[in-house]
Amino acid sequence: MKIKGFKMSAVEAGIKYKNRLDLGLIYSETPAVTAGVFTTNQVKAAPVLIDVERLKQGRAQAILVNSGCANACTGEAGMDAALETSKMVSDALGIDDAMVQLSSTGVIGMQLNVGAFENSMGKLVANLSEDNFDQVANAIMTTDTVKKTVYKTVKIGGKNINFMGMAKGAGMIMPNMATMLAFILTDARISFPELHKSLIAANNSTFNRITIDGDTSTNDMVLVMANGAAENEWIDEDTVEAQMLFQDTLEEVMKDLALQIVTDGEGATKCITIRVCGAKEEDEAEKVARTVANSNLVKTAFFGEDANWGRIIAAIGRSGVKVYPDRISIAFGNVLLVKNGVSLGIEAEKEATKVLKEKKFSVIIDLKDGTGCQEVYTCDFSVDYVKINADYRS
Amino acid sequence: MKIKGFKMSAVEAGIKYKNRLDLGLIYSETPAVTAGVFTTNQVKAAPVLIDVERLKQGRAQAILVNSGCANACTGEAGMDAALETSKMVSDALGIDDAMVQLSSTGVIGMQLNVGAFENSMGKLVANLSEDNFDQVANAIMTTDTVKKTVYKTVKIGGKNINFMGMAKGAGMIMPNMATMLAFILTDARISFPELHKSLIAANNSTFNRITIDGDTSTNDMVLVMANGAAENEWIDEDTVEAQMLFQDTLEEVMKDLALQIVTDGEGATKCITIRVCGAKEEDEAEKVARTVANSNLVKTAFFGEDANWGRIIAAIGRSGVKVYPDRISIAFGNVLLVKNGVSLGIEAEKEATKVLKEKKFSVIIDLKDGTGCQEVYTCDFSVDYVKINADYRS
Repeated sequence: MKIKGFKMSAVEAGIKYKNRLDLGLIYSETPAVTAGVFTTNQVKAAPVLIDVERLKQGRAQAILVNSGCANACTGEAGMDAALETSKMVSDALGIDDAMVQLSSTGVIGMQLNVGAFENSMGKLVANLSEDNFDQVANAIMTTDTVKKTVYKTVKIGGKNINFMGMAKGAGMIMPNMATMLAFILTDARISFPELHKSLIAANNSTFNRITIDGDTSTNDMVLVMANGAAENEWIDEDTVEAQMLFQDTLEEVMKDLALQIVTDGEGATKCITIRVCGAKEEDEAEKVARTVANSNLVKTAFFGEDANWGRIIAAIGRSGVKVYPDRISIAFGNVLLVKNGVSLGIEAEKEATKVLKEKKFSVIIDLKDGTGCQEVYTCDFSVDYVKINADYRS
Repeated sequence: MKIKGFKMSAVEAGIKYKNRLDLGLIYSETPAVTAGVFTTNQVKAAPVLIDVERLKQGRAQAILVNSGCANACTGEAGMDAALETSKMVSDALGIDDAMVQLSSTGVIGMQLNVGAFENSMGKLVANLSEDNFDQVANAIMTTDTVKKTVYKTVKIGGKNINFMGMAKGAGMIMPNMATMLAFILTDARISFPELHKSLIAANNSTFNRITIDGDTSTNDMVLVMANGAAENEWIDEDTVEAQMLFQDTLEEVMKDLALQIVTDGEGATKCITIRVCGAKEEDEAEKVARTVANSNLVKTAFFGEDANWGRIIAAIGRSGVKVYPDRISIAFGNVLLVKNGVSLGIEAEKEATKVLKEKKFSVIIDLKDGTGCQEVYTCDFSVDYVKINADYRS
């Protein structure tokens, strides 16, 4: 898929490693309405600090993104380096510096290799083309094993509205925007407040619901650029229906990317949905689901394909939410395993173990204390996760 | 070491596995002043529920402890089974049923094999001897690789006061009393309020400061029995100095056991102290230290002997405590690695990496925002942790 007015490019800049795409550029020929959400970590990388400030204008024309270096915890030198790379882009494209968004991912604490940006800028800009979306998706990978993209079209007000999304992220992933980048381009014509509102809502039910290791990064962001090339009637505060349809589609795009991230979680062999029902409140359901989804003991049991529900109920019990242990039911897929806090026996466990052998399954927990229901997406925790993270910098 | 008046015994009861000690009994010939602290998990095993109730009287004469089955999430049947085993002990010893404390560790959700208790009770009671402390320490092991004991003597008011402590625990360990058992015997003559106060204080700075995997169990407890055989002057509310000395010694005993647990953490190869200084408040220092100590990414980097301080600073930034990233300093042992949020360079990292190769080291974090300082003890996170926990039930 292409979207008129958006051009992309990626090059092997050699920022950290040779012979791999590590620098990408996304360019909108016209100023695009742009909204972003950023890491909740107090330690924010230089590009995040710059982007947040610039996005107050709700417009951008370029995203410069690199892997191999996070440019986080790099002090003034890191901030200067980021601004320098921004200037290179704005000069080369002939656009205002404030229209450039910056994004970095990689090792924290290393200074940015500005020379590599300088040497590659000419080629990066020269190669811009509507066809290079996948190349950029490749350039932002770090410990990812596959590139993550999604394409979608929806009809709003009689016009086809197109979406192209890419994401990276495989570790340091935790609810609340962590160690992941996602860029979504659309030709929708939409006002900034509506775009921003749609992004926040879609983010809460997608990227903020995935967890790989409970860690939170310094660099994460989701940016959505809408260039209006679809020439649909403006989506704004008066077009509630169109806004809802746009938001739902954006949510689908982001959920698709979010699940791609979990499935490619560092060392992951399974993608698991933890659904908690019957909580007193929705946020309590979410809290319980997150505690289970983040438990190392639960995740290693998934890896071992062991229907060890005792670890799940122990995680529920320490979640901080008031629960009644003798009401809790737990099912793996369609197999009810625990009823009112007690095992349904060996046969049920055998059936549940079959569910665990699948690549993708759900754990459904019923607290029987109300109507609050929420889902969180996680992966299993494997020997390879440790290997990857013990070796990551070497 | 022996303590007059305490007798111990352990047998191979075959509760889950054959040919290993799995059932232990500790017996005080006279009613001992006894205090306990228990898991904070809302899902509490049957023995925990019984013990808490019985300990209101501040006295006990026996501790019956088994490995191989946690007797947690076993409903009414589990509660009945626990009471049955208690009755076997009280009948055999000719003591009041309420003087028996019960303790179980092992798989959650499995019903207790009461027959195994029944068949072994005669031998268990017949073998009681002042010499069998180590045998019981062996019987309470699950994924522990070594038994954990400590012996200490202190002079209080001219009398020798003896302490013998044992503990088990290797996974599901997290601040706040988790997946561990510890039993401490002393011949001190001390009132219940003073014993209880000493235990709570000592626990907060020892067992509540260790973390292996951030999970919390359903069965954990520390019990201290003081039988008064030392015939020291009663330690009570009027003997502040003696109480402080008693508490300090108890704390030493418990810290020794706590560090033994961390060192034997599932798959652990290193024991690490995370010390956070310069926090606004003590509890904020503790919160930051716990977040770092529980981060999978930090712990896998320790395993990989990688001075990846970026993961430490990222954990600090998501701890929920307000910090100033550009003030943070991080040292590994005596090697300052990060000053005011920025790396001190490759040479410092090389030196820090040497520290990481040691079996035991400290990470010192200075937030430069106050005088709050706290320590937490953790271990690294290895490939073997995952292997152990993926296979634990098989």
